[in-house]
Amino acid sequence: MNGAEFLISALEFSGVDTCFANPGTSEMHFVAALDGSTSMRGILGLFEGVVTGAADGYGRMLDRPAATLLHLGPGLANANSSLHNAKRALSPVVNVVGDHARNHLELDAPLTSDVEGAARPFSNWVRTSSRSEALLSDAAEAVTVALRGNVSTLVLPADVSWTELEEVPSNWPCVGTVPRPRVDQGSVEAAARALIEAGPRGLILMGGRTMRAEAVEFADRIGAATGARVCSDTFLPRVERGAGRHNVGTVPYPLALSQELFSRYDTVVLVGTKPPVAFFAYPNSRSEISSPGTRFVDLCPSSPFAHDSLSAVYDALPEKLRHQDHESRRVAMVAEHAVPDRPSGSITREKLAAFLGSAIPENSIIVDESITTGSGFYSATTGALPHDWLSATGGAIGWALPVATGAAIACPERKVVCLESDGSGAYMPQALWTQAREGSDVVTLIFANQRYQILRDEMANVGVSKIGERAANLLDIGSPSIDWVAVARGFGVAARRVETMDDLGKAFDQAISTSGPALIEVLV
Amino acid sequence: MNGAEFLISALEFSGVDTCFANPGTSEMHFVAALDGSTSMRGILGLFEGVVTGAADGYGRMLDRPAATLLHLGPGLANANSSLHNAKRALSPVVNVVGDHARNHLELDAPLTSDVEGAARPFSNWVRTSSRSEALLSDAAEAVTVALRGNVSTLVLPADVSWTELEEVPSNWPCVGTVPRPRVDQGSVEAAARALIEAGPRGLILMGGRTMRAEAVEFADRIGAATGARVCSDTFLPRVERGAGRHNVGTVPYPLALSQELFSRYDTVVLVGTKPPVAFFAYPNSRSEISSPGTRFVDLCPSSPFAHDSLSAVYDALPEKLRHQDHESRRVAMVAEHAVPDRPSGSITREKLAAFLGSAIPENSIIVDESITTGSGFYSATTGALPHDWLSATGGAIGWALPVATGAAIACPERKVVCLESDGSGAYMPQALWTQAREGSDVVTLIFANQRYQILRDEMANVGVSKIGERAANLLDIGSPSIDWVAVARGFGVAARRVETMDDLGKAFDQAISTSGPALIEVLV
Repeated sequence: MNGAEFLISALEFSGVDTCFANPGTSEMHFVAALDGSTSMRGILGLFEGVVTGAADGYGRMLDRPAATLLHLGPGLANANSSLHNAKRALSPVVNVVGDHARNHLELDAPLTSDVEGAARPFSNWVRTSSRSEALLSDAAEAVTVALRGNVSTLVLPADVSWTELEEVPSNWPCVGTVPRPRVDQGSVEAAARALIEAGPRGLILMGGRTMRAEAVEFADRIGAATGARVCSDTFLPRVERGAGRHNVGTVPYPLALSQELFSRYDTVVLVGTKPPVAFFAYPNSRSEISSPGTRFVDLCPSSPFAHDSLSAVYDALPEKLRHQDHESRRVAMVAEHAVPDRPSGSITREKLAAFLGSAIPENSIIVDESITTGSGFYSATTGALPHDWLSATGGAIGWALPVATGAAIACPERKVVCLESDGSGAYMPQALWTQAREGSDVVTLIFANQRYQILRDEMANVGVSKIGERAANLLDIGSPSIDWVAVARGFGVAARRVETMDDLGKAFDQAISTSGPALIEVLV
Repeated sequence: MNGAEFLISALEFSGVDTCFANPGTSEMHFVAALDGSTSMRGILGLFEGVVTGAADGYGRMLDRPAATLLHLGPGLANANSSLHNAKRALSPVVNVVGDHARNHLELDAPLTSDVEGAARPFSNWVRTSSRSEALLSDAAEAVTVALRGNVSTLVLPADVSWTELEEVPSNWPCVGTVPRPRVDQGSVEAAARALIEAGPRGLILMGGRTMRAEAVEFADRIGAATGARVCSDTFLPRVERGAGRHNVGTVPYPLALSQELFSRYDTVVLVGTKPPVAFFAYPNSRSEISSPGTRFVDLCPSSPFAHDSLSAVYDALPEKLRHQDHESRRVAMVAEHAVPDRPSGSITREKLAAFLGSAIPENSIIVDESITTGSGFYSATTGALPHDWLSATGGAIGWALPVATGAAIACPERKVVCLESDGSGAYMPQALWTQAREGSDVVTLIFANQRYQILRDEMANVGVSKIGERAANLLDIGSPSIDWVAVARGFGVAARRVETMDDLGKAFDQAISTSGPALIEVLV
């Protein structure tokens, strides 16, 4: 058994059964070893950012890591922006990067680079395996670290990969599932006290991996009992929401709006998040969203088990307050199933939002990188059939197509709807090819406005009032316009273009009812 | 005048007039400042690797840098694999990366990352500008470093970009052109002596930026005089070659062949390169290409002025030897213009090679990432009309489309022919869009064999004899096959598919005679 075979066994033993890959020569023993593996599935991406973006989507959905397989420093470089997003999404990822054999490294061959150095800014944990026998403990640690919501990068020198083990270890370390943090009773009591004191000037802010239905429900019940408002960070790795689930709003993206919101609260209980800050800095603006002097209480880490801490806070409230929730807000905060009529005629952003409210399939996964076109989508889909909503976490653009690809691999029984912009979609369109290859049930809507509209908006935000020709040349992408139907077909995905809401409805229904991926270019 | 406006002025003063860009919010002041610039041209890429790859191609052709403009750590991450190639090509590049405002950084907003840390593995020089006034000297130093054949990365915090200068400096540092290294007389004499002693066991190995027609001619004349063989590294940033120019072969890529070649020589004079090593390590193989005990003599650094040192070596040879070259080898080494008949019928790799020999336009730029399909292309084009040949330098895949794009921007009066593989082309197909937008005269041939054939070959090289289904699934890209005609049209480039040599000839002639980009998918 060589190192590569041993590593795959170790990963399988740790519960990893999926490997998104874009390999090269130094990873050939790993690729060959897949043939002998019992359960590891290799899924090819044509570009490394697709590979790690898919691993992000997979980790968001299953709370356990897929592995990746990347080729040397440049392969890792191409993967890093998706890893940045995965890290910010607290997604479990075990990122395996091949490197040259150690005695080859010192010769400085053309593909040589500082792989660990390239990994560190975008990984939470980095290790180079030093011998074949060490791969067992290295893999176990990589998976253990990943399960806590981290990107683990394991660098695999080619010689470690191809060297036969002298002895296969007999003690295989036990790697668990995603850790369930202990409820901190002190934090629970502090949060309860603070919310009781603050009353309507209290805010419960949720973020990260906490936005599961049960946790949101407890937060909402605490809010109803104490008068606190509940809301979530602007961007979230995954939210369980829709009809029948408790619904909370998000912090608005525009800085003036978010600061205005927070000015109403002097006490903020943080549930798996930290004090909110602006996405970008602007001249003459504070970057902190909360008002000076705001009191923060940290309730619990960001995990899928935040309901443990939130239910404890609820239980710690006086009986009198808890009773209150039965009579006032709680029921009102459960989203009712509301299916708006399907709009017809010309396409507008408002009609698109209403359309999604009516069209989202039950138990589907929505991946949202619709940016300016979709600014109203989230609130308009509160009462849609129950679904998961995945949004931007790290701000690295172009993530939606790869993340949708990985989410579909993780949950083959669910429909995935990917809401994508034309500017963003152009970063990693190769993800469509992996969807076609795997027959994934992903329906992608490309909202084509033929410009980086967000940047035009941001020009105003940073104080630039007049956009001249040279500047506009870097903001508009309509010359030539991207033909998304052609691009999708080029990568093997059935596609069509729509210019009316009616055609969108028909195309969407057909795409959803058909197995395999489809793309609809929506001219906006 | 704010920092961004000042930086653009400083770059213009240093001779930089082209900026390949994919900006974001933190770069909006730079984008706005383009409107007020006198000569800086902004060229948009839909993906950051296209931006830096284009800067690589530009630098290879003009020996002076273009600037880039990238957005934060993830934007830089996407750009890094192309920067790796640029660094290995010794291409001058001034890579400008926006970062958050300094007081925003400490808040750890979603897009925050260690930009300098991400830059270091793939840049030769990294600096974060600390105030607007410093941008003048920072830009001058970035350009000066780049002109020596380096990737300079200048990190531009948003607040440095938007802050008004208190005083515009009056002393503007003078930045020269590409430095012409002083000829080291000791090295010249040592090289001459070594080659005279070695006679036919001497080898002159050229690499990096030295493969200009005049330098190759002097090397060849030295070879003819002393009996030394002349050859070049396997992969080169740019070679001036073709009919009427001296022609030297390259070190073969397969390790067994290259080691066999070097076993015939005990003395190697290095011209702008270093002792040759294998691209990859293989089990039970030495990675050094030269035989143990080989004597190396370092003649000169890798610059476009290697002919200074080589002509000095020639002059240092005894008159008797110099005379020898008139009678023996020199004339024979000048490539004769040889236009093979155009092959017809079914497409084979051999016919493609012959076709290129006849079809390469005069004074064109050939960008070659044809990998396995094109293994015979270089030798078959020795007698083609004079042209420049650009090949892989750093081994990061997918470079040809972006580099061709930048070469066309650098040399708008020349035709660019891009020889691309289907696997490689799928990494950064967005480069086609920039070609369409800029109306660049680039004709791309995609050789579609629907697999990573090089990896199938490398599987054998690393000792894997049997490729099973799971492994093959990571090596073959034919399911679904990429429709390159659709992809190209999607990005605005006219395209067609050919299945015979005759159709290839017609399509190529038409593409070359038409202004603007075109793509031909060649089924092989």
